[in-house]
Amino acid sequence: MRRKVYVEGSRPELQVPFTELELTDDSTFRLYDTSGPGSDPSVGLPPLRSGWSQGRTQLGFARAGVVTPEMEFAAVREGVSPSLVRDEIAAGRAVLPANKNHPESEPMVIGSRFLVKVNANIGTSAVTSSVAEEVDKMTWATRWGADTVMDLSTGPRIHETREAIIRNSPVPIGTVPLYQALEKVNGDPEKLSFSLFRDTVLEQAEQGVDYMTIHAGVLLPYVPLTTDRVTGIVSRGGSIMAAWCLAHHEENFLYTNFAELCRIFAEYDITFSLGDGLRPGSIADANDEAQFAELRTLGELTHIAWEHDVQVMVEGPGHVPMHKIKENVDLQVALCGGAPFYTLGPLTTDIAPAYDHITSAIGAAMIGMFGTAMLCYVTPKEHLGLPNRDDVKAGMIAYKIAAHAADLAKGHPGAQAWDDALSKARFEFRWEDQFELALDPVTARAYHDETLPAAPAKTA
Amino acid sequence: MRRKVYVEGSRPELQVPFTELELTDDSTFRLYDTSGPGSDPSVGLPPLRSGWSQGRTQLGFARAGVVTPEMEFAAVREGVSPSLVRDEIAAGRAVLPANKNHPESEPMVIGSRFLVKVNANIGTSAVTSSVAEEVDKMTWATRWGADTVMDLSTGPRIHETREAIIRNSPVPIGTVPLYQALEKVNGDPEKLSFSLFRDTVLEQAEQGVDYMTIHAGVLLPYVPLTTDRVTGIVSRGGSIMAAWCLAHHEENFLYTNFAELCRIFAEYDITFSLGDGLRPGSIADANDEAQFAELRTLGELTHIAWEHDVQVMVEGPGHVPMHKIKENVDLQVALCGGAPFYTLGPLTTDIAPAYDHITSAIGAAMIGMFGTAMLCYVTPKEHLGLPNRDDVKAGMIAYKIAAHAADLAKGHPGAQAWDDALSKARFEFRWEDQFELALDPVTARAYHDETLPAAPAKTA
Repeated sequence: MRRKVYVEGSRPELQVPFTELELTDDSTFRLYDTSGPGSDPSVGLPPLRSGWSQGRTQLGFARAGVVTPEMEFAAVREGVSPSLVRDEIAAGRAVLPANKNHPESEPMVIGSRFLVKVNANIGTSAVTSSVAEEVDKMTWATRWGADTVMDLSTGPRIHETREAIIRNSPVPIGTVPLYQALEKVNGDPEKLSFSLFRDTVLEQAEQGVDYMTIHAGVLLPYVPLTTDRVTGIVSRGGSIMAAWCLAHHEENFLYTNFAELCRIFAEYDITFSLGDGLRPGSIADANDEAQFAELRTLGELTHIAWEHDVQVMVEGPGHVPMHKIKENVDLQVALCGGAPFYTLGPLTTDIAPAYDHITSAIGAAMIGMFGTAMLCYVTPKEHLGLPNRDDVKAGMIAYKIAAHAADLAKGHPGAQAWDDALSKARFEFRWEDQFELALDPVTARAYHDETLPAAPAKTA
Repeated sequence: MRRKVYVEGSRPELQVPFTELELTDDSTFRLYDTSGPGSDPSVGLPPLRSGWSQGRTQLGFARAGVVTPEMEFAAVREGVSPSLVRDEIAAGRAVLPANKNHPESEPMVIGSRFLVKVNANIGTSAVTSSVAEEVDKMTWATRWGADTVMDLSTGPRIHETREAIIRNSPVPIGTVPLYQALEKVNGDPEKLSFSLFRDTVLEQAEQGVDYMTIHAGVLLPYVPLTTDRVTGIVSRGGSIMAAWCLAHHEENFLYTNFAELCRIFAEYDITFSLGDGLRPGSIADANDEAQFAELRTLGELTHIAWEHDVQVMVEGPGHVPMHKIKENVDLQVALCGGAPFYTLGPLTTDIAPAYDHITSAIGAAMIGMFGTAMLCYVTPKEHLGLPNRDDVKAGMIAYKIAAHAADLAKGHPGAQAWDDALSKARFEFRWEDQFELALDPVTARAYHDETLPAAPAKTA
């Protein structure tokens, strides 16, 4: 049996959720819980953090030596001391994405000293899906352990979709404001301007977006570095900014106006997710000069954001063969001063469309072991279409596996207790406990019952 | 479009199969092909190797400097020189499993210098499936790239099932003779004897089994080393031999009679697969003294087999967290003189029953990168039930991904050409070529058509 329990922090309003499993040997086991209290989509979630940190960013507070309620909440979830959360944020090695206008979110922390996190991408497109479907996908993703969700909607209902997702989301929400800015100029990158972009950022900031991908590292001189690639520029944001740079023969307006973005981000405590617009889109293009030139610029921007007390994560690839993965982490840590790395996979081979949740879970587990703080999931539909509900679940499960395998390899305190509890149940033929402890109890039980449906087989 | 083509070796009877893809840009691409010429199950395959190597084992020939037809066949498949195959076999670093009584098999080579191979386990049990179903699973597994197949049948029709599988199999077949021996004593390990075991080996040798798992490393003094484990002894063969040792207070009869087994194996050119009966069954038990004590004994036995000109592979774990994987390979290489390592996964976490093809694909890719020569697949049903046809495919796909990711990481000559061809097709929006080049064209096409079914979307 499973139920939600709350652990109280130093004050009564700090109620930190866990999933508690009651096992048949009279023991209990607690799991990290991202699913939130549950919402009626037409009403939204209650504003849990109403009246919490005000007037500074989490980075600002951490640097001032303050443990905020948000930091303590995240520390209880992680099973670590609040001062560790504060110190890692102060050093820039962790972020706590929490827009002051998204009080519904349950605070969490992203950094290499903490549990490896997983982000799920969702979003409407011009041709498929509805607002209600996307809210359902967000809820479904957090049900399966999504630590953050990115709303990558395109098409006409971007604002409305995002509003519905944020109001119902117990986890931080990320966006790529460039996608909406492009809609405003009817899809023509050349017509983009910083003023239009800034307005879009402000619109999303007001709604409560917790982190935003900003492709400020795609510089004009880097674009020619991609011409000899097998797959050129595959990042949508990267392509858009490259097209703008080439059309105007001017430097990327996100780079030239970065300080202005920092001022806006500081006001709302939005976290930068510095986009890797030149990430490799194939094994052939991994770790090339275009990719690493951009990474050097992302390092420069990281330090500028920190000067403004703004939190920063740095996005990473993409497609990378196993033997080239570690270099990505080592360089990112060195160039970006230890700011959390947030990687898409990487996919370790290009030969398996329809199974890129697996090609990339391999790379994700490894890059997590090397120090990546958050993994952006990849679903079976990668390269082929938009993920539906089943794909969201398949992607989440593959990535929770990768994240936990990385936690084990890093020796995260407490991580192995979960494996041990399940293995002990397995060895003692406590089938029901084995199912309950499984990442996906539903499927584990169903597979077992397919060959051995009789109840005695589960207790024998 | 795809078709089977044959490349002729130095003599007309050497016809080496490939899958050739005709792409829409008028290029062609060739894939390694394990599927065989196709058989009518009631007739079986033609005896391709009839009259090939006689009178010595492949190891014996290699040591005498002879390139056998089998070696040349395998070399053409791999795109390497026949002398490399001969030299690696002579050094014990590669095996070419080819029982003289299984002339239907298409020769292949297993060793760290060659493409990483994948084995698929199938087999009837007392409660489920038929002989025809198992032959179909074998064919299905080779269709998806299985390089060898192990028939792990239990229950009353072991002999008949194995006969049908071998006569129809274009790939080497492995078994665990102990399973059949145990059936002969009605499942009571105590009643086993070497003479009964030897008779079983001879019966299977006559049928044409190409490699056999022999649990000769489970020594009496090692059994107590498992008592403090979370999951004790999880290998079926390991449990049986441990039970026999404890019941008789005698040393493992497979160890004490190992030289006799070598003489039989030499006569048929059966390859040893030295079983790891004390492999860890959980993250908690990885790399412990029981496991490594057995590995030292397997090293000793490897050298004894080589004295008899008998080929050897060594089996490995199991359940191992990522940071402990490399130690397994390094120790195995050192203790077993470079004999090919053949590992089950390893699973990198215990928390995801129903997804152990993924938990283990992560470990399999990594251990392959470190030098494992063959990966034994794990299906989604691992720990839960027997794999059906869909599970066989899911396991095969996950493991072909792991094997190819390892080939890339090892810089296997030619491996990346496949990724490059697919990525180029992707970048040029040649959708049909992308599907054809995919590991699973059927599913890739279906996923694409789910969201973008119109034909123009595939050529745009």
